[in-house]
Amino acid sequence: MDSLEEKTVKRETIFDGKIIKLVVDDVVLPNGARSKREIVKHPGAVAVIAMTPENKMVMVEQYRKPLEKAIVEIPAGKIEPDEAPELTAGRELEEETGYKTDDLKHLVSFYTSPGFADELLHIYLAGDLKKQANPLQADEDEFVNIVEVSLDEALQLIEEKVICDAKTVYAVQYWQLLEATN
Amino acid sequence: MDSLEEKTVKRETIFDGKIIKLVVDDVVLPNGARSKREIVKHPGAVAVIAMTPENKMVMVEQYRKPLEKAIVEIPAGKIEPDEAPELTAGRELEEETGYKTDDLKHLVSFYTSPGFADELLHIYLAGDLKKQANPLQADEDEFVNIVEVSLDEALQLIEEKVICDAKTVYAVQYWQLLEATN
Repeated sequence: MDSLEEKTVKRETIFDGKIIKLVVDDVVLPNGARSKREIVKHPGAVAVIAMTPENKMVMVEQYRKPLEKAIVEIPAGKIEPDEAPELTAGRELEEETGYKTDDLKHLVSFYTSPGFADELLHIYLAGDLKKQANPLQADEDEFVNIVEVSLDEALQLIEEKVICDAKTVYAVQYWQLLEATN
Repeated sequence: MDSLEEKTVKRETIFDGKIIKLVVDDVVLPNGARSKREIVKHPGAVAVIAMTPENKMVMVEQYRKPLEKAIVEIPAGKIEPDEAPELTAGRELEEETGYKTDDLKHLVSFYTSPGFADELLHIYLAGDLKKQANPLQADEDEFVNIVEVSLDEALQLIEEKVICDAKTVYAVQYWQLLEATN
């Protein structure tokens, strides 16, 4: 793999924000030529596939400013400094949906867009959901509507592009695979 | 859905690069409070699930500077200005793998990370692959190794975190679902 490596000559920090940081690296390519790489640094995130006893998946409708529209996603959130991803998963699930669980299983982790960002997303499967009377409160700048959908409804929402992000499309396909192999 | 909308008060452009652009929006939240949203603008991308007659999936090993390592992914690339995504798909497949196809079927499109980026990724299924003697050449700053993997090998590469990005994890799960339902 060494032959593909791009060596960093210089790194310039362009922006250091609340959530992301932007750097531009000057690199030496495998053939010795120079190029620039624009890189978004992100703390990483978790997402939770949470199934109710009625075999519905818990999702949240949320306005996404980059898209200028509300979409429906599985519960998710960014990892706080020094927070273990599994703790983030439990916290975000409760904050966004009011469900608590002690049963979290790590399914897979993936980089959302390795061409320009280092964000790593960890996906968990949550069982044994318990609705909390007084759940943790969401972040003060976060507003969500909770929806619980059947597999058919989820597939219809993909058709309608209301479910339209990587982690949720993955989650619905995971559900299809579960149903196909059970 | 209107109740979730975040209205833009001001937009500041922080960076306008070769591939991405970074803006920061001042927004009014549904409760009237103010917040900031850090947004990466991206031209969009395509990825191709390409199966050989030997029932292997065509992938490329590529160094990803944001991760500082080489990983194995399905062929992909960003959409050029005014390029139809299906043309991008055919072009990137040939440039990166040497395979040409006239049989591209759109499977799904998803936002890779809607919390901070507007990148929309279109995934195509390619059939009827033809190896080209003189394929289109890759971008001058792009270096890849071609690998063709069985489903078992792909699952093993996920286990080893060599396959570790959203589109490729999705593609392998798509393959599992195909096998489970055929």
